[in-house]
Amino acid sequence: MKVAVIRKEHFNSAHRLYNPKWTDEKNEKVFGKCNNPNFHGHNYDLYVKLIGEPDPETGYVYDMKVLSDLIRDKVIQKFDHKNLNQDTDEFRSLNPTAENIAVVIWNILRKEIDPSLELKVTLYETERNIVEYPAD
Amino acid sequence: MKVAVIRKEHFNSAHRLYNPKWTDEKNEKVFGKCNNPNFHGHNYDLYVKLIGEPDPETGYVYDMKVLSDLIRDKVIQKFDHKNLNQDTDEFRSLNPTAENIAVVIWNILRKEIDPSLELKVTLYETERNIVEYPAD
Amino acid sequence: MKVAVIRKEHFNSAHRLYNPKWTDEKNEKVFGKCNNPNFHGHNYDLYVKLIGEPDPETGYVYDMKVLSDLIRDKVIQKFDHKNLNQDTDEFRSLNPTAENIAVVIWNILRKEIDPSLELKVTLYETERNIVEYPAD
Amino acid sequence: MKVAVIRKEHFNSAHRLYNPKWTDEKNEKVFGKCNNPNFHGHNYDLYVKLIGEPDPETGYVYDMKVLSDLIRDKVIQKFDHKNLNQDTDEFRSLNPTAENIAVVIWNILRKEIDPSLELKVTLYETERNIVEYPAD
Amino acid sequence: MKVAVIRKEHFNSAHRLYNPKWTDEKNEKVFGKCNNPNFHGHNYDLYVKLIGEPDPETGYVYDMKVLSDLIRDKVIQKFDHKNLNQDTDEFRSLNPTAENIAVVIWNILRKEIDPSLELKVTLYETERNIVEYPAD
Amino acid sequence: MKVAVIRKEHFNSAHRLYNPKWTDEKNEKVFGKCNNPNFHGHNYDLYVKLIGEPDPETGYVYDMKVLSDLIRDKVIQKFDHKNLNQDTDEFRSLNPTAENIAVVIWNILRKEIDPSLELKVTLYETERNIVEYPAD
Repeated sequence: MKVAVIRKEHFNSAHRLYNPKWTDEKNEKVFGKCNNPNFHGHNYDLYVKLIGEPDPETGYVYDMKVLSDLIRDKVIQKFDHKNLNQDTDEFRSLNPTAENIAVVIWNILRKEIDPSLELKVTLYETERNIVEYPAD
Repeated sequence: MKVAVIRKEHFNSAHRLYNPKWTDEKNEKVFGKCNNPNFHGHNYDLYVKLIGEPDPETGYVYDMKVLSDLIRDKVIQKFDHKNLNQDTDEFRSLNPTAENIAVVIWNILRKEIDPSLELKVTLYETERNIVEYPAD
Repeated sequence: MKVAVIRKEHFNSAHRLYNPKWTDEKNEKVFGKCNNPNFHGHNYDLYVKLIGEPDPETGYVYDMKVLSDLIRDKVIQKFDHKNLNQDTDEFRSLNPTAENIAVVIWNILRKEIDPSLELKVTLYETERNIVEYPAD
Repeated sequence: MKVAVIRKEHFNSAHRLYNPKWTDEKNEKVFGKCNNPNFHGHNYDLYVKLIGEPDPETGYVYDMKVLSDLIRDKVIQKFDHKNLNQDTDEFRSLNPTAENIAVVIWNILRKEIDPSLELKVTLYETERNIVEYPAD
Repeated sequence: MKVAVIRKEHFNSAHRLYNPKWTDEKNEKVFGKCNNPNFHGHNYDLYVKLIGEPDPETGYVYDMKVLSDLIRDKVIQKFDHKNLNQDTDEFRSLNPTAENIAVVIWNILRKEIDPSLELKVTLYETERNIVEYPAD
Repeated sequence: MKVAVIRKEHFNSAHRLYNPKWTDEKNEKVFGKCNNPNFHGHNYDLYVKLIGEPDPETGYVYDMKVLSDLIRDKVIQKFDHKNLNQDTDEFRSLNPTAENIAVVIWNILRKEIDPSLELKVTLYETERNIVEYPAD
């Protein structure tokens, strides 16, 4: 049976929910106060899970210090204290919902992690709004 | 791969664990202090998870505002600041253990959510006693 | 300068807010859903703070194991898994608001703790409703 | 001795730290990544404390439902899902540091609360950055 | 569909990460500050999950009081306020990484729980370093 | 009125409670399982509070990034992943109770912070055992 290791990191970003193909009225109707054209923001808590077999020499599935550094280099540095819609290539034309942010982060990290390890991402947009990708 | 969205809500209820087919002695023996005939109570934290594919137009698996309103209308209004044994039809003859409360909430919400979306419920009775239905 | 030590304990109780000198209408108007005659309940988190000077022999202001046992013997055993209005002498004629519960607990503990130590009580009725006695 | 009641609410906002009298270089040097001209954001947790004597009729220092409604009407509606620098009068020319936000909220609420009650505000900008006004 | 029940317990231990077959230099390089020969320590939060069908008589998958007592007798008593490397048979020659601790606890509890119930263990070494066994 | 800013940091250490002037029996009797000669350990959460007036140019009482770096340089580097009794000068002959650790940290930081700012330290040894110095 395999073991999962999970590392928690966090970042603070501004964003706005918006579909450029829609009228302002439709955007306002669907996204409500999240559509504020001047943006709002969140403290995002990010949990990255890797599933694999512990190395018998180290007892580690993955060195958590290395995982923390990897998440900080590839994800936190890109999104922390940024405006997701304006400062990042990933969300220039993709709506930065929590769902899409989780998928984008998964795609970034998937390239960096050995394919023998399964990867899952959980993102807390607030204490009460949470997404997982891929879903359990 | 699918994405999960999770919404947290809460309610405060009184309850008593009790099997009416048993003697008082047996109820006391099995349920201990949870069997107090004058009731005790909890702050219940409820997490509702929906699993599906994000709508490409909105980036949402499910609108979290709509999900919050649904949980409040169908679950919180029924159980919050209520005596589960005495004030609710669901637990008049069903023992309000955390397990049974989670299953009852799942059954209530299942009727309200499109069948294409998978539904899971996690209920914290206390910080240290937690149930999930269906189990992961 | 003095040092404070704080111990966290918890209990789960049912209660009802109610003033017996008022009509049902007035009770309903003032206390709303907290007035439910069949009771509701909470997980109470209790923080007990003692302020004094550390003993130079032990480095303790107060032995936290002893403080924990004292709170459990004198407070938790009395209120945990109880109906505050019906099962306790303290609240038979005193409305069990968070404010009154904090004052009652302070009075119970004040008799047990050496007068040279200052005593403060913080009570979380929910994560969002908190009281302190005496107030800072 | 007096009793304190504390109510927790929250809001999500975008902001940018910036002194308009300074050069871009000085702003960048002093405020670092918080100076991002496209904004970043936070989930703010707000604790509002009122200190007074419980009403002997109700056992309340202040009705927590009334306090919650007051904070939502006067504070949350103004700042939630807003850009503090651009969408609010309060921070158009005042730097929206956590310190200044706490003082602004205190000033808003002070007008609404009877002077016999002492008022204190605690604001979590993140789990690790917290301010209190007035300071304990 | 089955229901999961989860019980949270905790213990505080000292440990050191170390592979006796390696040189000091290699241990230092791989385990960094976790390799400190004089040990460091953690507050471990342990979640034990059992998956099964609620008993129709009790509404319980498993009595949480019994589960709590079992975890305390078999796991907490063994590891709490202990040096994992020096005071326990389990980690005298097994590196006490979070991964290995979770597997050891699972093996201890697996013998005590009826095979009809699925067993999972989640261990928080810190708020930011978490392991699960078996992995979801 | 003054404003307080509070920064949270953390460290993980091993320790043993012990009075070298006492017999083993007395140490065992007074400190119980905390006296384990092979040590146990904790995740310490440290809150450092500074009280002063916000600088009108910056809106800061103290730059939280500077405060975080100061705590990490002067406190965390000294105690994190260390054995308090064996690896630190401060606790070679001072019993590392939570009370004494808080006072030691306060003394370290007091020298680094301008005297115009009031300084307070809160230390969580566990979620349930907390100390403050100086006491509120």
